[in-house]
Amino acid sequence: MEMWFSDIHTDGVKLSIRIEEQLFSAQSEVQRIDVLESKDFGKILVVDGDLMLTERDEFIYHEMITHVPMAVHPDVRQVLVVGGGDGGVVRELIKYDTIETIDVVEPDPLLVEACRKYIPEIANSLTDERVSIFNEDGLRFIRSKSDAYDLIIIDSPNPFGAGEGLFTKEFYGNCYNALREDGVMINQNESPFYTEEAFQCQRMHKRILETFPICRVYQAHIPSYPSGHWLFGFASKKYHPLDDLDKVGWKLKGIHTKYYEPRLHAGVFALPAYVEALLEDVER
Amino acid sequence: MEMWFSDIHTDGVKLSIRIEEQLFSAQSEVQRIDVLESKDFGKILVVDGDLMLTERDEFIYHEMITHVPMAVHPDVRQVLVVGGGDGGVVRELIKYDTIETIDVVEPDPLLVEACRKYIPEIANSLTDERVSIFNEDGLRFIRSKSDAYDLIIIDSPNPFGAGEGLFTKEFYGNCYNALREDGVMINQNESPFYTEEAFQCQRMHKRILETFPICRVYQAHIPSYPSGHWLFGFASKKYHPLDDLDKVGWKLKGIHTKYYEPRLHAGVFALPAYVEALLEDVER
Repeated sequence: MEMWFSDIHTDGVKLSIRIEEQLFSAQSEVQRIDVLESKDFGKILVVDGDLMLTERDEFIYHEMITHVPMAVHPDVRQVLVVGGGDGGVVRELIKYDTIETIDVVEPDPLLVEACRKYIPEIANSLTDERVSIFNEDGLRFIRSKSDAYDLIIIDSPNPFGAGEGLFTKEFYGNCYNALREDGVMINQNESPFYTEEAFQCQRMHKRILETFPICRVYQAHIPSYPSGHWLFGFASKKYHPLDDLDKVGWKLKGIHTKYYEPRLHAGVFALPAYVEALLEDVER
Repeated sequence: MEMWFSDIHTDGVKLSIRIEEQLFSAQSEVQRIDVLESKDFGKILVVDGDLMLTERDEFIYHEMITHVPMAVHPDVRQVLVVGGGDGGVVRELIKYDTIETIDVVEPDPLLVEACRKYIPEIANSLTDERVSIFNEDGLRFIRSKSDAYDLIIIDSPNPFGAGEGLFTKEFYGNCYNALREDGVMINQNESPFYTEEAFQCQRMHKRILETFPICRVYQAHIPSYPSGHWLFGFASKKYHPLDDLDKVGWKLKGIHTKYYEPRLHAGVFALPAYVEALLEDVER
C-alpha cells in the first residue's frame, strides 16, 4: 500500500512523506491530533493537518529555540514554555542543572497524553520534577504573571486558528511584564520565504520590536518545515544576543547537542540580504 | 485542471509544486529537459525529472556559488564554469568588470537553447562577449588545461548518471592542475540531511580534501532543493575562505545581491554540529 502524508506549504506547494502507519488519530476539544510513522522522518506529529514535528529533525528546532538564549542569559532559573506540550523544548531545558522551575502552558491535555504515549523519547522530559504543566490558554495564563520568569519560550504553532492570541501585541506585552528585568523571550518566527508566512514573520517582528528594547531574528535549517528556512525571534530587556554570548561558560556546562554550538551562534544571526530587507521593512 | 510536478527527494519524500503550464519538453542526446511554469516558484527547469532551478529561488544558489569565492580571491580574471548551461552562474560572474574570460563547459547544446528561449532573464547572460561556450564533456575538456584559470565553479547536477565523471578524484585533480597557483575551486556539495545525499556529500568532501591544501564547506538555505539545506565546497591552493575575505573591497564594487553579503560570509561556514561530524568523519 502507498500512503502519503502531505504538509501543505502554500496552495501550490506541498511536502509529501511516505507513511508506514497511522499510529494515533483523535479529535480533542481543541484540535485534531495525529501521530504517523514514516521511514524517512520517523514518527511525525500532525496537528489539524499541519506537520508539527518529526523525530528525525525536531532536534534542530528544539535546540535552536532553547540553547541560543541559554548561552546568552547568565542565570536562568524560572522558565515559561508557552505551548510545547510535546516536551521537546523541555527536554533541552532540563539539560541545565541551574534551571529550577519550568512552567509549560499547553491548552490541550490530549496533546500531552498522545506525545507521552507515542513519542516518549521526546515527551518523557515532561515528567522531570521541575516541570509543571498548566492546561490553560497561554494568553490568559500570562496575564496574571509579573516579574516571574528569566526566560519565556513561545513554542506555538502558526498564527492561524487556535493559537492566534499568542501573536498579538497584548500577548507580547504580557510576556514583557511576566519577565524579570533582565528577561529574555524567544519565539518561533515562521519562515521568510513563502509570501503568506513572510507576512506573518514581519508582523510578529514588528509587534515584538514595539515591545522589547532588544530584538533580533535568527535562523536554522529545518528540513521538514515549509521552505526549510526557519526563523526565531530573540527579544530581550537587557542582554544582547551576540555581545552577551558566553561561549566558554556554555561549553563548560558540557551539554550535548547535535545542531547548536556556540561556534555557529553569530552565524545564525547573519541573515540573507532578502530576509534583512523583509525585517527592515517594519523596523523603520 | 490540477497538474503537479514532484521532485523526488528520497523514495519516501517528495516536494510537489502546482504547475500552470508545461512550456517545453524535449529529449536531447544527453537528457530530457522540461521547463514548467508555476505560480509559487515561477519557471522551473527540470532535467531528467529532477528540479534544477526555479526562477523564484535560483538567486540563492547562483549568488552563493559565485560571490563567496569572488569576495576572497583578490584577482579573478579567467573563470571556468563546468555545467552551468542555464547561465545563472555567468549572470553573477559578469557583474565583475575585472573578469576577462568565462569558459562554460556545457555538454548539452539543447539545454542552453531551451534556457535562452524560456528563461532569458537568467540565460541571456551567456551572450556576454567574455563568455565562450564549449559543448563538451567537462572531464575531457579540463584534462588539456594547465595553469589556466583563477576560479573554477563546478555547477553540475548530482553525482548520478551523466554527470558522474565530475565527481571523481581524477576530475578534481585535473581541476587542481587547470588552476593557477592561487586558484580557487567551488563545487555544489549536495545536502547533508537525507542519507543518500549525505553520503555523496562526504565522498565529494573526501576527494577534494585529498586534492587541495585548503578545503572548507559552506551552506545556504535553498527552499526548492532537497531538505532546503544545501552545501558548497570551497577548495583552494592559497587563499583561506575566512582569513582572506576582503569585506570592504567587495562592498566597494557595488555589486547588487539578494542573498549574499560579506556580513554573512563567516556564518555560512559555521556548520551545524551534525554536519561538522559528517564531514569530520572523512577528514581523519
